[in-house]
Amino acid sequence: MTPPRRLTGPCLAFLTRQRPSATAPRAFHSLPSSTSTSTNACRRHLSSTRHLSRIQVNRRKDVKQANMSATTLKGQPLDKAVLDAMLRRRMFYTPSFEIYGGVGGLYDFGPPGCSLLTNITDIWRKHFILEEDMLEVDCTVLTPHEVLKTSGHVDKFADWMCKDPKNGEILRADHFVEAVLEARLKGDKEARGLKVEEKDDPKKKKKKAKSEAIKLDDALVKEYEEVLARIDNYGGPELGELIKKYDLRNPETGELPSDPVSFNLMFQTTIGPSSNSPGYLRPETAQGQFLNFAKLLEFNQGGMPFASASIGKSYRNEISPRAGLLRVREFLMAEIEHFVDPQGGKKHHRFPDVADVELVFLDRETQLAGKTETRKVAVGEAVKSGLVDNETLGYFLARIHLFLAKIGVDQSKLRFRQHMQNEMAHYAVDCWDAELLTSSGWIECVGCADRSAYDLNVHAKKTGAALVVRSRLDEPITIEEWEVDVEKKKFGPLFKKDAKTVEAALMASSQEDREKLAKELKDNGKATITVEGYGDGKAEIPSDAIRIEFRKRVEHTREFTPNVIEPSFGIGRILYALIEHNFWTRGSEGTDEARGVLSFPPPVAPTKVLIVPLSSNQSFKPHLKKLSQRLRSIGISSRVDDSSASIGKRYSRNDELGTPLGITIDFQTLQDNTFTLRDRDSTSQVRAEEDKIVEAIKSLVDSSKTWADIQKELPAFEGQEVDVAVREK
Amino acid sequence: MTPPRRLTGPCLAFLTRQRPSATAPRAFHSLPSSTSTSTNACRRHLSSTRHLSRIQVNRRKDVKQANMSATTLKGQPLDKAVLDAMLRRRMFYTPSFEIYGGVGGLYDFGPPGCSLLTNITDIWRKHFILEEDMLEVDCTVLTPHEVLKTSGHVDKFADWMCKDPKNGEILRADHFVEAVLEARLKGDKEARGLKVEEKDDPKKKKKKAKSEAIKLDDALVKEYEEVLARIDNYGGPELGELIKKYDLRNPETGELPSDPVSFNLMFQTTIGPSSNSPGYLRPETAQGQFLNFAKLLEFNQGGMPFASASIGKSYRNEISPRAGLLRVREFLMAEIEHFVDPQGGKKHHRFPDVADVELVFLDRETQLAGKTETRKVAVGEAVKSGLVDNETLGYFLARIHLFLAKIGVDQSKLRFRQHMQNEMAHYAVDCWDAELLTSSGWIECVGCADRSAYDLNVHAKKTGAALVVRSRLDEPITIEEWEVDVEKKKFGPLFKKDAKTVEAALMASSQEDREKLAKELKDNGKATITVEGYGDGKAEIPSDAIRIEFRKRVEHTREFTPNVIEPSFGIGRILYALIEHNFWTRGSEGTDEARGVLSFPPPVAPTKVLIVPLSSNQSFKPHLKKLSQRLRSIGISSRVDDSSASIGKRYSRNDELGTPLGITIDFQTLQDNTFTLRDRDSTSQVRAEEDKIVEAIKSLVDSSKTWADIQKELPAFEGQEVDVAVREK
Repeated sequence: MTPPRRLTGPCLAFLTRQRPSATAPRAFHSLPSSTSTSTNACRRHLSSTRHLSRIQVNRRKDVKQANMSATTLKGQPLDKAVLDAMLRRRMFYTPSFEIYGGVGGLYDFGPPGCSLLTNITDIWRKHFILEEDMLEVDCTVLTPHEVLKTSGHVDKFADWMCKDPKNGEILRADHFVEAVLEARLKGDKEARGLKVEEKDDPKKKKKKAKSEAIKLDDALVKEYEEVLARIDNYGGPELGELIKKYDLRNPETGELPSDPVSFNLMFQTTIGPSSNSPGYLRPETAQGQFLNFAKLLEFNQGGMPFASASIGKSYRNEISPRAGLLRVREFLMAEIEHFVDPQGGKKHHRFPDVADVELVFLDRETQLAGKTETRKVAVGEAVKSGLVDNETLGYFLARIHLFLAKIGVDQSKLRFRQHMQNEMAHYAVDCWDAELLTSSGWIECVGCADRSAYDLNVHAKKTGAALVVRSRLDEPITIEEWEVDVEKKKFGPLFKKDAKTVEAALMASSQEDREKLAKELKDNGKATITVEGYGDGKAEIPSDAIRIEFRKRVEHTREFTPNVIEPSFGIGRILYALIEHNFWTRGSEGTDEARGVLSFPPPVAPTKVLIVPLSSNQSFKPHLKKLSQRLRSIGISSRVDDSSASIGKRYSRNDELGTPLGITIDFQTLQDNTFTLRDRDSTSQVRAEEDKIVEAIKSLVDSSKTWADIQKELPAFEGQEVDVAVREK
Repeated sequence: MTPPRRLTGPCLAFLTRQRPSATAPRAFHSLPSSTSTSTNACRRHLSSTRHLSRIQVNRRKDVKQANMSATTLKGQPLDKAVLDAMLRRRMFYTPSFEIYGGVGGLYDFGPPGCSLLTNITDIWRKHFILEEDMLEVDCTVLTPHEVLKTSGHVDKFADWMCKDPKNGEILRADHFVEAVLEARLKGDKEARGLKVEEKDDPKKKKKKAKSEAIKLDDALVKEYEEVLARIDNYGGPELGELIKKYDLRNPETGELPSDPVSFNLMFQTTIGPSSNSPGYLRPETAQGQFLNFAKLLEFNQGGMPFASASIGKSYRNEISPRAGLLRVREFLMAEIEHFVDPQGGKKHHRFPDVADVELVFLDRETQLAGKTETRKVAVGEAVKSGLVDNETLGYFLARIHLFLAKIGVDQSKLRFRQHMQNEMAHYAVDCWDAELLTSSGWIECVGCADRSAYDLNVHAKKTGAALVVRSRLDEPITIEEWEVDVEKKKFGPLFKKDAKTVEAALMASSQEDREKLAKELKDNGKATITVEGYGDGKAEIPSDAIRIEFRKRVEHTREFTPNVIEPSFGIGRILYALIEHNFWTRGSEGTDEARGVLSFPPPVAPTKVLIVPLSSNQSFKPHLKKLSQRLRSIGISSRVDDSSASIGKRYSRNDELGTPLGITIDFQTLQDNTFTLRDRDSTSQVRAEEDKIVEAIKSLVDSSKTWADIQKELPAFEGQEVDVAVREK
């Protein structure tokens, strides 16, 4: 699961700095001030059951680098304001309910954004599900309380928030502390006459004045910096103490905010007409896959290993959503749960196919040393050297890389960052994030974790369902152990609706427990067992309701709970990074004449072909219709633009939409059925008769040929570009 | 929108009858007992803002017919229990959270169900969005209170429920009244020695005994029948009166249930950390499209008509979800909003393309006469004769028909039923449902309504947004009317946060209102206007904050609110009907040997090709891999089954999954690279070398050839069917 959350952090409007963060100290050890963690105490607690709250880990160094190196596809400095205006103008996405004033963290996708989403998930489905014979499932978003209680989300999926006593403003506690301290540090720098980092966002510049140029004590500066370095390690009470200790006041009101309280990030609702059936909108798609494990194994005819996969929406009720698509409340995820036998080294039969794929790694040791240097290593080598824990994990890292490359991610802006030991849950074996570099820094877009058997185990323990694999042993083995038999006829009426819960607790008991219980039964005619969620937590069972005996048996099968390797994709984040990676401007830079281009690869591009008639002359109409029908019949989406704008304007519009090819219909077409075909990226054109043009389009869209190939095959055409030039000036 | 709701009605376990329903009387007029309405007073109220609560209208006659005529694709009687067991076994769909005991009305789709969903929506997207250049949007499910308040859902999207005072059971009031009265009528029939209708569902048969054979007074029988005939017209208070009048007691407890209370069917939640931001999960996808109208119009460069479309999940918190996928709480919808100029007869430029398509119509007049006879009419003729209101509506009915035919709906089980006048909202022009015949009767699967300008108007009125089209007039016109100017500088500070609301109310005022207001201003120096949602509903405006004058102006453009034609698809219902329509059994009927087949057309089938090696012999492996890779490279999904089951068993399994084609790899393959290709429906086989087999598969999957064509081209093969026969016996 890839949580689109907690990116840049600022919850106060005046905050202009990128939130610094880095590797996670376990507790309050002294760490170099250049490192801090991305998970605060509350979230770290969370991540000990599931890496629910992972954010990109940006060191200060890193962020600085990101800001300075935010570039377009062509290496130009990326002007975020220009890009945002273009995305809005072309309706890639738009704030939801805008005519009602909008709601934070909710976005609607317009036609090109929608098409991008569809194309990305379509390629994802082919690349992972079809290519790997995964079992796709589509589970409900509505999830009853009990399931998410077991998974740990009800108790731990939370942030700390506090309230301004005067205006009622709700602040995310860690963001608030961070923002106020940073403002003070900035004021200190100004007072000392030091250069204050410049920010890109022009809107935020105005607010800067709010920080007052007051010089701080040197020791205090150091203290503040140390607090900021470990901001994500503090729990609610500690954040509350910091607020009091440093007298951190809300600049809007001058008030001290209230003590931080825990705020669960799941959207709660009630399922059915009765008010005692609480439920939530799922915060991830994984749980539905775990719950269906036994059925999926059966569907797979018992075969192991296998993977399930799911594409669907998940929900997180962010306290202060920001950063556009990067931290939202409703988002599309694609998750894979690959179930593998924990014995035998987690080999993958297709690993040799990817062993030579080179990945850019930022490993744990490098991060611990406070550095961000990456190294490029073939994944085969990485597994061999132990950098990546096992073949299956390595296989998926390579497959993730290939997927991102396929959709058009800039590979120089992709790295795989390993989780620190204390970033991961205690049961996790290894975890890597695919991070993409954007103007907001390195963004976690895909997580890939080896989660051992944790999830299946907790659900099995809670429900008593057998979420296990039974495999035939080559050699039968003899086992001697304590076994529990339940006398259903006595047991059922005794515990009624709780019978299942009590039985599950019995079945989950250890050998030692069972030995003790057997003795109790023998001595007292009854035994007491601890059952979570039953009465006062203890169940007394009379000896006629169960039997516990030490027995010998011969096993011909082995039973085990599979381990899970979980690649988890945040589609919205990938989509946004993809836009930045493919954006550049043409024409005079910095002036109004700079025209935006989105150089999406054809399979991802929202529309493949633009068809433009030279003018609104009626005689062009039949050609328009025939051509778009012909393209449609071979599965290529096209769009006709017969508006009155100049051809140049019409092409510009479609460069902004990322349409890779353009066909012009002119008076020559009427005579000889030839068309010009234009390449979005070079704006060069060729001219040929219909069949050849359609053939060229087909080979460009299925990537079997490049534009250079087509230029060699078909004669160049110069006419229209003149038209463009003339009309645009 | 196609609400998957209120299908068969029974809320009491003992109820075994199909719920009767038919045409809707406006009030309590005496109607033949064979007719009743599908919307009760509460729901009718609803449907006066939006046809939110449409259910299939099954006359008693109709239902009887449906039960008797529930047949398989091959005309065999459809054994629902056999089909259900198969769907479960093959994991088409499965109750969600089953290991936790399940939650009513929530289903997960397993691999074949998921693939069906993907294929259906993929074809839908091509058939509608790409083919018609619609503007696809993907809006959020989370919707703030205010939006659904304006649309009418907060106030009116509700059912009546009552509670048993003893056991707390929650009953849907109309279902409860219906069930108890029907049980009494059945008891009466039994007492009179009349034959009682037999039901299919074996599970329910046992419960029948509960109705006691007590003869009723003739007059009472008539009364009961009349109540049942109009059960859907009663509001909550009336249902409460019926419960008291007839002493209707919950058979589970012998108690009278409480008075009915209104229960809103939307799932409520809170957006953001503050508790004063209530929101809902959308009950339909339409609202997001309406709210984005202005942006979409701009994206379309002002061109009219145009359509937006959306595929996504919607939610309805059913009181008593039943009937599998037919009435669920979370479901996939595909909705189109076609925006058209209300002037000029709502022509459609592509209408001539579909004018000859013949549709099966059940019109309003026939239903009013208490009949269900349908007639087949070309849609061109239907529009010409006025049966269908306009070309655009007719165009979509034909396109819906073509879509359903394309995915494999049995056309003899499809009809278009017109809504009765009082079934529709007051502003609606015409509305038709595409209904599919299933074992649960005629099910509304697609609605297609002409909703006039209602939706855009209510949102524009509430927000002040200009949800209008401006089109250039050929001849300028002169207009004289009262105009309102707002002095922003005075007006804003005066009404603060409500300024927008008050201004919107001013702008929405009629000419008469404005004339009155102008006089008030002149006479009193201030004017009072009614503003919904502002203070006590009245706003007093001083004369220096607004100016109202009677002016003459020349207009060069015409401004209008477009009308909306809304085709709305319930994908889950279509999927279920499709399964029933394509199901049949092979082998000895009625015995265990009957083997299920799902004869999906190849484009819809979850997997296109099954590849089976004759045995687990290692020498077959390279062929398996090569062949599946080759098929994948041409975009055809295949699945290898190299389990140890007999070839016959493996084919049977895939017949149940609806896989249309099967390839066998045997020892001959190793010698000459030939394969056998098997047709699911006939089980006949051909044999040829690889290229020819792949070519044949390609043409079958893209529907360019039929199996009969292939049989003419390639030599028949008899071998494997012997194997099937031998091993299966």
